[in-house]
Amino acid sequence: MSRRIQILRRATEVFERQGVNRTSIEDIANAVGIKREAIYYYFKSRADILLKIILPQSTSLVMGLGAIINSNLPAEEKLEAAIRNHLDRFNPNYLEMTVALREDHFLEDEGKAAELRGVWNEYTHLWTRLIEDGQEQGIFKPGLDARMVANGVLGMCNWMSRWYDPGKSIPIDKILDIFFTMVAHGIVDPGAKPPAAAKAPRRTRKAAAKD
Amino acid sequence: MSRRIQILRRATEVFERQGVNRTSIEDIANAVGIKREAIYYYFKSRADILLKIILPQSTSLVMGLGAIINSNLPAEEKLEAAIRNHLDRFNPNYLEMTVALREDHFLEDEGKAAELRGVWNEYTHLWTRLIEDGQEQGIFKPGLDARMVANGVLGMCNWMSRWYDPGKSIPIDKILDIFFTMVAHGIVDPGAKPPAAAKAPRRTRKAAAKD
Repeated sequence: MSRRIQILRRATEVFERQGVNRTSIEDIANAVGIKREAIYYYFKSRADILLKIILPQSTSLVMGLGAIINSNLPAEEKLEAAIRNHLDRFNPNYLEMTVALREDHFLEDEGKAAELRGVWNEYTHLWTRLIEDGQEQGIFKPGLDARMVANGVLGMCNWMSRWYDPGKSIPIDKILDIFFTMVAHGIVDPGAKPPAAAKAPRRTRKAAAKD
Repeated sequence: MSRRIQILRRATEVFERQGVNRTSIEDIANAVGIKREAIYYYFKSRADILLKIILPQSTSLVMGLGAIINSNLPAEEKLEAAIRNHLDRFNPNYLEMTVALREDHFLEDEGKAAELRGVWNEYTHLWTRLIEDGQEQGIFKPGLDARMVANGVLGMCNWMSRWYDPGKSIPIDKILDIFFTMVAHGIVDPGAKPPAAAKAPRRTRKAAAKD
């Protein structure tokens, strides 16, 4: 492992443990076991290190999704592949994903923050296109705002950075199956009998108030 | 507005703008237009202020969900009401929710962090119960891990703290409809014809390799 990669690896661990804002260059140097000055031989600043951790993750996420969209898969399989493209990255790159998803908002350097924001905007844009394509083909329900659907799926996947624990959580493949089922077909059993009459019809008061 | 509330309000704005870790008591005092010492008359520390912002939000979220679970609504309407209970809070309390959802991991004070974690664990626990109840009643699909479904829905809702903008995003009510439809019934149109034959059956190679 090159010294540069070693610094990135240790920095990721420290960032994940104590948060970027409470990590100094000194902390990272201590974790690697080198002097503070040696870090500056490879990186300009803490923000530079953070970006070098996050950007490759984010870029490969976007490239993976782009390839799925350009494939010949039917819309529903594209959806599954796109969720897999996202979740699979939590496995070997759990710490990088966690840092990327927690920290992108508070990058001090505005230029670097903008670069990263560009990548994430591109990612959301591609997800929106995946949904729109499926709607145009008549596979996905037409009435749903594609951008909001994309935000919803991204939220499900990204929030994993808050609860997923590679040692304890159920396997990624099972999480993928559950998330895909939820988004594609929902959790309500279509074979279920309609529930016994509820106390009052849904939203009656509100609807009446609007008329 | 009492001085105490005024401090909390201004602190929320500053936290949301620049992140808790980069905010000093001095910054908060400046935003209120009082001296640093005056803050300490009301609050012990920055962590104390943060907790006083986050805890009421989180507690009322939990209490709202508890009331829904104990209601007589059918499972599917409980699901909708629970998503509404969460999303509606983004409206008048957008900044508080944003700060709560972004920052809960890095509270310096371990006792306070544990208190907050307890509230959020309770919230996830209640969501899991809502799903389990619906499964036991035969309304929700039985095979899905209820805890993972809960994590998925919470992710959708919580991630709003990253993209929702009260001035620009579509209304909360529309977001609610989309998220509810996604989770309850999915985005695939059940009336859609099956797609034209794909190039290769799904996952053939992988499945073959396993045999």
